[in-house]
Amino acid sequence: MAQKIGKYTKKLENSPSVIGFASLGSKKESEGPMAQYLDIINTDSLFGQTTWEKAESRMQQAVAERAMEKAGVTAGSIEYVFAGDLLNQCIGSHYGLRELEIPLFGLYSACSTMAEGLALAGMLVEGGVCDTTMAITSSHFCSAERQYRFPLEYGGQRTPTSQWTVTGAGAVVVGKNSMPPYIRAVTIGSIVDKGIKDPSNMGAAMAPAAAQTLLRYFEDTLTNSDSYDMILTGDLGRVGSALFGELMELEGYQIASKHSDCGLMVYDCENQDVESGGSGCGCSAAVLCSYIMQSMRQGRLNDVLFIATGALMSTVSVQQGESIPAIAHLVHLSTRGQ
Amino acid sequence: MAQKIGKYTKKLENSPSVIGFASLGSKKESEGPMAQYLDIINTDSLFGQTTWEKAESRMQQAVAERAMEKAGVTAGSIEYVFAGDLLNQCIGSHYGLRELEIPLFGLYSACSTMAEGLALAGMLVEGGVCDTTMAITSSHFCSAERQYRFPLEYGGQRTPTSQWTVTGAGAVVVGKNSMPPYIRAVTIGSIVDKGIKDPSNMGAAMAPAAAQTLLRYFEDTLTNSDSYDMILTGDLGRVGSALFGELMELEGYQIASKHSDCGLMVYDCENQDVESGGSGCGCSAAVLCSYIMQSMRQGRLNDVLFIATGALMSTVSVQQGESIPAIAHLVHLSTRGQ
Repeated sequence: MAQKIGKYTKKLENSPSVIGFASLGSKKESEGPMAQYLDIINTDSLFGQTTWEKAESRMQQAVAERAMEKAGVTAGSIEYVFAGDLLNQCIGSHYGLRELEIPLFGLYSACSTMAEGLALAGMLVEGGVCDTTMAITSSHFCSAERQYRFPLEYGGQRTPTSQWTVTGAGAVVVGKNSMPPYIRAVTIGSIVDKGIKDPSNMGAAMAPAAAQTLLRYFEDTLTNSDSYDMILTGDLGRVGSALFGELMELEGYQIASKHSDCGLMVYDCENQDVESGGSGCGCSAAVLCSYIMQSMRQGRLNDVLFIATGALMSTVSVQQGESIPAIAHLVHLSTRGQ
Repeated sequence: MAQKIGKYTKKLENSPSVIGFASLGSKKESEGPMAQYLDIINTDSLFGQTTWEKAESRMQQAVAERAMEKAGVTAGSIEYVFAGDLLNQCIGSHYGLRELEIPLFGLYSACSTMAEGLALAGMLVEGGVCDTTMAITSSHFCSAERQYRFPLEYGGQRTPTSQWTVTGAGAVVVGKNSMPPYIRAVTIGSIVDKGIKDPSNMGAAMAPAAAQTLLRYFEDTLTNSDSYDMILTGDLGRVGSALFGELMELEGYQIASKHSDCGLMVYDCENQDVESGGSGCGCSAAVLCSYIMQSMRQGRLNDVLFIATGALMSTVSVQQGESIPAIAHLVHLSTRGQ
């Protein structure tokens, strides 16, 4: 039975288990530090398709199939899939998962989607509602860039605070307690909006959300960074990561020695021309479902707080002068069951 | 503990309860048959805001506050809200719920969002993961029309199969077993795509999804329409409803005497110039959270199968020649607990 810890955190007593995971990247990701850990690399960013959007759908299908294969399960045995992406109406997921015919919960939570899906998958398994579920998400630089910013052909200049959307995907199969890593606790975030209006500075918009969620988790569990091997934020990038550290310090928590950010891990930020780092649903998903999960399986990391962050604006809300609401969901992954 | 019935259906043994609900409409809805049942009617379709999108956000906030008030709970006591809408990046929900500061699960499932949210809210309460949750969604004719079709000023002609997006919203507060109606069972749909490519004929795209989900539910539970007072589809409209009846008949199920469709209930379709009927996330949400829930509270309806349907295309997928994937989620509401 899930146990409520403090106001915002649920401890999952039955320790739902990550029984399979897979990750995918394309050319730029193959040139970064995660390359050796990715399950699938296709340097053709069209993935054999005719449009970027169809490519992203193909990515979701490929990574879902690989995750199921690694978990030793078939699509028919997955009771629910939790899926979403950045594209309008989440077409990456809907077209990508169409052929698998798994009952689907569609999600939208921008770049925090992997944590949202993982949390829901874990909570349904914990509650005995189902035995086997999957969480999946993706992003594609080209489909995101033309949807949110400019046509690629325009060659728009990028500001130093901007982040580079990862062409990547990740999928996690969650089942009943069987092997590490386990989903031990979940803290779902609420919307935080500190008035940032620059869509090229999502790190600044998202850092306060990450800080609020981590603070709630620390206060609920009466722990601090000493209890964890890694505090892994979704994709705050260079700008957001610095702000996140400062915000936590203001609250009395030193996290610098434990903090890593998927947006800074996925690329060699000094040499890959990605400004403030990587972003996109596929950023935290690909890093989590490659290096992090592998390290946990091998016992090199034992307790990870995965905090994926999302910036929830649209081009319309930005054009209408609105600020950027942000959200962060936290999942405590551990090699130790309860 | 949730019990698996057949392959696709979960019976919720603890019977999570609808402890509050509220609905909202605007001018056209105030002229239709649901008017007398709606909690909030504002004939100013801008709802005091400066844009249609901000109006839709305002609608979500208003209906959420009214549902909590009717349930006798505060935002601080709602553990999770499940929310989504039709707008790109679901800005109706994210800006609308920003001030409530409730931990938020963002959903995207087009017009099936209310059933998706209700199912998740019910399953988390059932599993003991939380005590009190809320499901909410909305749509707005003007924000949807200009996003999916043409600028309103263009005055585009509508085809006879097209549906009119409802300017409406609904919210349901779900809690532990306390009063009817109860959420008794849930069947989550998988994507069905029969190759329909006309975005002005969503009824035809969605009818096969509704039929598949209802068929799975009937087969899993060994019941048929005799066991229910109403089989309530989300918004198939006139065209989709006829197809749905035919598809069920081909499978050996007579549902005509029990079938109603929110898209045909929300407007006086003969006289309100809505072609095939109403649609939009707010259509099934507003009908469910007004006439249906009130009828159940008063014992005039005892067993309702609520099957909300969604068409999962985007303007980009349509422009790229793709067909329309559809989905339908079923929630069995009953005045009787297990």
